[in-house]
Amino acid sequence: MTEARINSEAELIALLAPLTDGAPGAFGLKDDCARLTPTAGYDLVLKTDPVRAGVHFFPDDPPEDIAWKALAVNVSDLAAKGAEPVAYLMALSFPEPPQRSWMQRFADGLKQAQETFGCTLIGGDTDRAPGPLSIAITAIGQVPTGQMVRRDTAKAGDAIYISGTLGDSGLGLRLHAEARDGRRDLRDRWGLTDWHCSILVNRYLRPQPRIELAGFIRQHASASMDISDGLVKDLERMCRASGVAAEVDSALIDFSVPAVHVLTREPAEFSNIISAGDDYEILAAVPQDQIGAVRSKNQHLPVKVHRIGTFTAGSGVIVKRIDGTIIPFDRTGWDHF
Amino acid sequence: MTEARINSEAELIALLAPLTDGAPGAFGLKDDCARLTPTAGYDLVLKTDPVRAGVHFFPDDPPEDIAWKALAVNVSDLAAKGAEPVAYLMALSFPEPPQRSWMQRFADGLKQAQETFGCTLIGGDTDRAPGPLSIAITAIGQVPTGQMVRRDTAKAGDAIYISGTLGDSGLGLRLHAEARDGRRDLRDRWGLTDWHCSILVNRYLRPQPRIELAGFIRQHASASMDISDGLVKDLERMCRASGVAAEVDSALIDFSVPAVHVLTREPAEFSNIISAGDDYEILAAVPQDQIGAVRSKNQHLPVKVHRIGTFTAGSGVIVKRIDGTIIPFDRTGWDHF
Repeated sequence: MTEARINSEAELIALLAPLTDGAPGAFGLKDDCARLTPTAGYDLVLKTDPVRAGVHFFPDDPPEDIAWKALAVNVSDLAAKGAEPVAYLMALSFPEPPQRSWMQRFADGLKQAQETFGCTLIGGDTDRAPGPLSIAITAIGQVPTGQMVRRDTAKAGDAIYISGTLGDSGLGLRLHAEARDGRRDLRDRWGLTDWHCSILVNRYLRPQPRIELAGFIRQHASASMDISDGLVKDLERMCRASGVAAEVDSALIDFSVPAVHVLTREPAEFSNIISAGDDYEILAAVPQDQIGAVRSKNQHLPVKVHRIGTFTAGSGVIVKRIDGTIIPFDRTGWDHF
Repeated sequence: MTEARINSEAELIALLAPLTDGAPGAFGLKDDCARLTPTAGYDLVLKTDPVRAGVHFFPDDPPEDIAWKALAVNVSDLAAKGAEPVAYLMALSFPEPPQRSWMQRFADGLKQAQETFGCTLIGGDTDRAPGPLSIAITAIGQVPTGQMVRRDTAKAGDAIYISGTLGDSGLGLRLHAEARDGRRDLRDRWGLTDWHCSILVNRYLRPQPRIELAGFIRQHASASMDISDGLVKDLERMCRASGVAAEVDSALIDFSVPAVHVLTREPAEFSNIISAGDDYEILAAVPQDQIGAVRSKNQHLPVKVHRIGTFTAGSGVIVKRIDGTIIPFDRTGWDHF
């Protein structure tokens, strides 16, 4: 017996419409457009970053996780700009009609994600087209007028801060990929437990946009962006945009317990770990006169931020070892082209 | 010699950045997000409707036309809601890096379109993924607060109005498809001249969103939507949403000169023509007390509107011949599933 598939737009809309609860301008997904009444005194911050099966996730990943990730990668950008998520539109493209149960689980994952991030589905579109499943979300956030934090405003002398830990998602992807193939070479080589693996794979499948840091970024950062394509590549982007250079002290980068395990067994993984991408942590420039405030606030933040270096005059990014020598990078991160 | 291809995100951004001129919140496409400062006293109206090669256009269509259509189909929805276009985000997905010349022509087409429609690119994303070329635009318009015209507010007794002429694009698609195959069967059968064909094909390649009617719609329509999937199907949707029925007098539907040619030679094409889709005309419900005003204003509108019938109590759509008999439809229009 084959499982029931969604066979009309109306059926799909009925399934997704509960995600619009609380957003009158979504019209239950039954109008052609969504309406959004902006809050007075706020700018909108908008981001569109589609994800596709085989590129950003595996086609057989749990649908809840696929949905979560599709929204999370967009919300992560809003948070890094100091914005609070408000709403999103979603265009789905299926190569064939999805199974009803798959679609329900996808909707459940979206519901979890939007409740966690504090935003609501307000509109979208669905069609069938050849090619991989594609989920194109446009996320909309708000920030007090004029307070969006840009990436091109870092200054020489500002401290480089990042949130959380780097590299977990990149390691998680590799472990997830080998597990899908029925292998455990890396896992054994790195001596990882089930618990280690689940932490790492979960960071790949369920990125956590740092929405709790949005207010903090607005108050204390001179420039900010999320780290989605690897620390070095994204830091290079911030440097290029801001016309500054960056010097990172590798000893100051924080790693999770499982990542420390990997690095202990295989120190050569270091450069992979800090350029793997999919971190969805925040990279921020903090002026010297804000560092004291950041230090004292840091203990109260749900996710800690860490100073890892300093922006300097010039151009380019260097990452130094404890002994002061420079770490070379073959590949600084993920390029989409 | 093979033609130069775009081989980095930076190159693509450099090529598209001029499209953001006049929109400071686009940051020249160099930030992670776009910023939009809403106009006080206005609601935003948002739409996302991606187009894909092989589904919404032919891969070898002129890139200027592909770009135009990708934006036009979204702006059409805004206009039908009574909104003026403001800005848009665009996520591009290429199966392989585009040729530089192709991409430049695509950007030229977008520039023409956005200047015609009065909106500006403010952000986007690009990646490479297997599958057809995909262009996912999210268009943002504005409407005085509370004045967005919905589709679910038509009332029994309201007149049914449509703008422009129906079916041209559907005929254009068929002529375009046969010309691509080096055939001219339909063209000869219908006795069409080059001029006829170019009018029809152009309506397929370059849909004209009825932005000039946005103010008119806000003032006089009780409900409105664009006709993108065929008159009958979209009218059914409006009826279902509004809880009314519709009766259309086929003799009142306006056709272009080339479409009249086709209908004269082949009257059986009538039902195809009014359910073919891709019209991007506006379907509006006009209350009886507004009909006088609509009639007197109509002569001053750049695109005329025509009354084609009346909303009634009940459900369903019927289209009547001159003799009062009902025209049956095998297929009322385009379903995306």
